[in-house]
Amino acid sequence: MKIGILGGGQLARMLALAGYPLGQTFSVLDPGVNVCSAAVAEQLQGDYVDQKLLAQLAEQTDVVSYEFENVPATAVAFLAGKVPVYPPQLALATAQDRLKEKTLFRELGINTPAFAAVNSLEELAQAMPQIGWPAVIKTRSEGYDGKGQAVLHQADDLASAWQALAGVPALVEAFVPFEREFSIIAVRGTTGEVVCYPLTENTHRNGTLRLSIARPGDAMQARAVEYAERILGRLNYVGVLTLELFQAGDSLLANEFAPRVHNSGHWTQDGAITCQFENHLRAISGLPLGATDTIGHAAMVNLIGDIPAIETVLANRHAHLHLYGKTERPGRKVGHINICAPSEQQMKVELGLLLALVDS
Amino acid sequence: MKIGILGGGQLARMLALAGYPLGQTFSVLDPGVNVCSAAVAEQLQGDYVDQKLLAQLAEQTDVVSYEFENVPATAVAFLAGKVPVYPPQLALATAQDRLKEKTLFRELGINTPAFAAVNSLEELAQAMPQIGWPAVIKTRSEGYDGKGQAVLHQADDLASAWQALAGVPALVEAFVPFEREFSIIAVRGTTGEVVCYPLTENTHRNGTLRLSIARPGDAMQARAVEYAERILGRLNYVGVLTLELFQAGDSLLANEFAPRVHNSGHWTQDGAITCQFENHLRAISGLPLGATDTIGHAAMVNLIGDIPAIETVLANRHAHLHLYGKTERPGRKVGHINICAPSEQQMKVELGLLLALVDS
Repeated sequence: MKIGILGGGQLARMLALAGYPLGQTFSVLDPGVNVCSAAVAEQLQGDYVDQKLLAQLAEQTDVVSYEFENVPATAVAFLAGKVPVYPPQLALATAQDRLKEKTLFRELGINTPAFAAVNSLEELAQAMPQIGWPAVIKTRSEGYDGKGQAVLHQADDLASAWQALAGVPALVEAFVPFEREFSIIAVRGTTGEVVCYPLTENTHRNGTLRLSIARPGDAMQARAVEYAERILGRLNYVGVLTLELFQAGDSLLANEFAPRVHNSGHWTQDGAITCQFENHLRAISGLPLGATDTIGHAAMVNLIGDIPAIETVLANRHAHLHLYGKTERPGRKVGHINICAPSEQQMKVELGLLLALVDS
Repeated sequence: MKIGILGGGQLARMLALAGYPLGQTFSVLDPGVNVCSAAVAEQLQGDYVDQKLLAQLAEQTDVVSYEFENVPATAVAFLAGKVPVYPPQLALATAQDRLKEKTLFRELGINTPAFAAVNSLEELAQAMPQIGWPAVIKTRSEGYDGKGQAVLHQADDLASAWQALAGVPALVEAFVPFEREFSIIAVRGTTGEVVCYPLTENTHRNGTLRLSIARPGDAMQARAVEYAERILGRLNYVGVLTLELFQAGDSLLANEFAPRVHNSGHWTQDGAITCQFENHLRAISGLPLGATDTIGHAAMVNLIGDIPAIETVLANRHAHLHLYGKTERPGRKVGHINICAPSEQQMKVELGLLLALVDS
C-alpha cells in the first residue's frame, strides 16, 4: 500500500521506517529542503496548498495522513475528494480550534478545566467570576502571528492580555495546579476496533516535552481509556489519537488532543509489542491493530538542540537511540533515547544516568 | 556515519531500516534494477567490479560492508585500499573457499565432519576409506556455472560425480546424519568485544531455510559460543558472523560460516533487545555492541514465493510481518514473519497456526 503524508519531519520518517516491513511505500509533501524523512520517502517539495502537488500526492497514494495538526484544512479537504484521508477532517477541524475541542470534551462528559469562549474584553471580564483566578487566555486557533496565550492573575491583567491577543477569538480557562501530566495514545481502526497504550507521564521543560515515562497499571488508566474511546467514537476516528490530560488530586482533566502520532508515544518503539507508528499505519490501511502490551519498563528522553556522545549512550544495554538525521540547533528536537529495563527500579536508575548525560 | 553495502537486496534493506535510528545513511552498489533496498538507500547501479562505481562508493561512505559472501574478492580488495571494509578480507576469502573454511575450523579445534581436499579422481578414491560412506563432494568455491555438489553412496559413484564437478578443486566430506541444524549469530566489535545470540534451530525445505526457532538455554550454547569466539578472534573479525552447525548426538559439528547477517537471525528483530542488523552496524561503525538477550520466545517463518493474506497474519497479536518490497515469484524469499510469544508453549501454538496459514 502507498502511503502519503503531509509533513516530512521526524514523525513521517518514523512512520516510514515502521511501514516498510508492512510492504508499504511512502511519499511526503513538505515545503522544506532536506527534510529528514526524505532519506526514506519520496518527497514532493512545495506548499501544502499547492493543488497540483496535492493532486499528484493523491494520484500516487492509496491513503493520506498528516504528521502535524496545523496542516491547512483546505489541503485536507482537497485531498479527501480524491483519496481517503485519515484521521478524518472532523478530527482535524476540532483539534485546530480550542473551543470546538473543549466543547467536544464537555459534550462527551469528559472533565476539563473550567473554560469560556470570549470574543471581546467585555466577555472576558464577564467570564472571570465563573472561571476564577488565576486563569489562562488562549487564542482559539494557533498561527495568529505567534500570539498565543497569557496568564491572568488579577482584573488589571485583562485589558493588556486581550490587547496582546490582538482581539482574535479566544478561550479563557482556569489554571489547573496539576500534580501530573499524562497522555494516552489511542488507536482506532476502520472497523471501529480500539486499542490504547498505557498512560504516559510527561515532563516538559521550556514548553517542550523533555521526558515521558510509561505507567502501565496506573489508577487513572481506565478513565483515560474511557475518555479516549468517547472521542474516537464521536469523531468516527481512524488512526492514532493522543489525548493530553492533567491529574489534579482524584480528578483527571482533558487538556487537548493531537490527531496524530505523538512525541509522548515514542517509547512504544522499544517498550511495546507494536509501536504507535506501526499501529497508525495499520489503522489507516484497514489492517488489524497490533498489541499495545508493554515490553519491560520504558521511558523516553528527548534530545533537544544537541546529540550526546552516542558511544556513551549505546554502552548502556537498556538504551535505544533514535536520531532524526537533523543537524543540531538550539531548541530543535534532533532525536530521542528510549530506556527499556526489566524492572521499574532499574528503569529509574538508567533514566537518571541518561538524564545526567544528556544534560552534561 | 555513511554506510556502503555491496548488494542491495533484503539484507541491505533491513540493515538500512535498522541504521537510520543510529543517524546513519546508506548507499548500496548492485547491478539489479528496482532492488528492494533502493526505497531506503541510494543505489549505485552497476557491476560489482566496476572500479569507477567502487571508487564512488568509497568516496561517499565511511565504511563498507557486504550482504552476500559471493561478492568478488577483487571488489573488496579495491575498496579496502580506500575505506575500511568489514568483515575483513580474510574472513571473506575463507568463507569463499570450503577448504580454507574447514581447515580453519580444524586448526581452531572446532569439530567438523571428516573432510579431505581432492583435486583429481585418484585423490577422491584415495580419500574415501578415511571419509567413509555416504559422503558429499562439493566444489571448493561457489559459482562454477552452477555445478555444486553430489552425494557419493558407493565406489561406482566417484567417476560420474567427479565428472559432474568438471574437475574443479573440490572437498569430500562425510555425510552427517544430524539430528538438529543450528546456527549461532555472533558479533565482534572493533575493540574485540564479542556478543552472541542464543542458538537458532533451523529447518530447511528444498534447500531453502524455512523456519528458525530461537533456543535460549540450549545445552549446546556454550560450545557454539566457544567455536564462534575462536573464529572471530583468529579472523580479527568485525561485524556479524553466522556459524552453521550440526548436532549429532552429543557432538556439535561446524558446517560453514557466513560473514554477514543471516536469514536465521531475522527473529532477533522482534525477539531480542538488539537485532542482528543493528549489531552489525554498531560493530562496523566502532560503536558498543547491543544486548542480545531474548524478548519472549521467538521463531521465524520465511515467506517463499508468495505472501499470505496480511490481514490474517496481523490479526495474530504475536506475529510481526517483515516484507521485502519484492514481487512474488516461485522460490523467491519475499518476506518473513516473526512470532514472539510470552511462553514457549504459546510460541509453538502460534507457530503451528502460522505454518498452516503460510502453507495453505
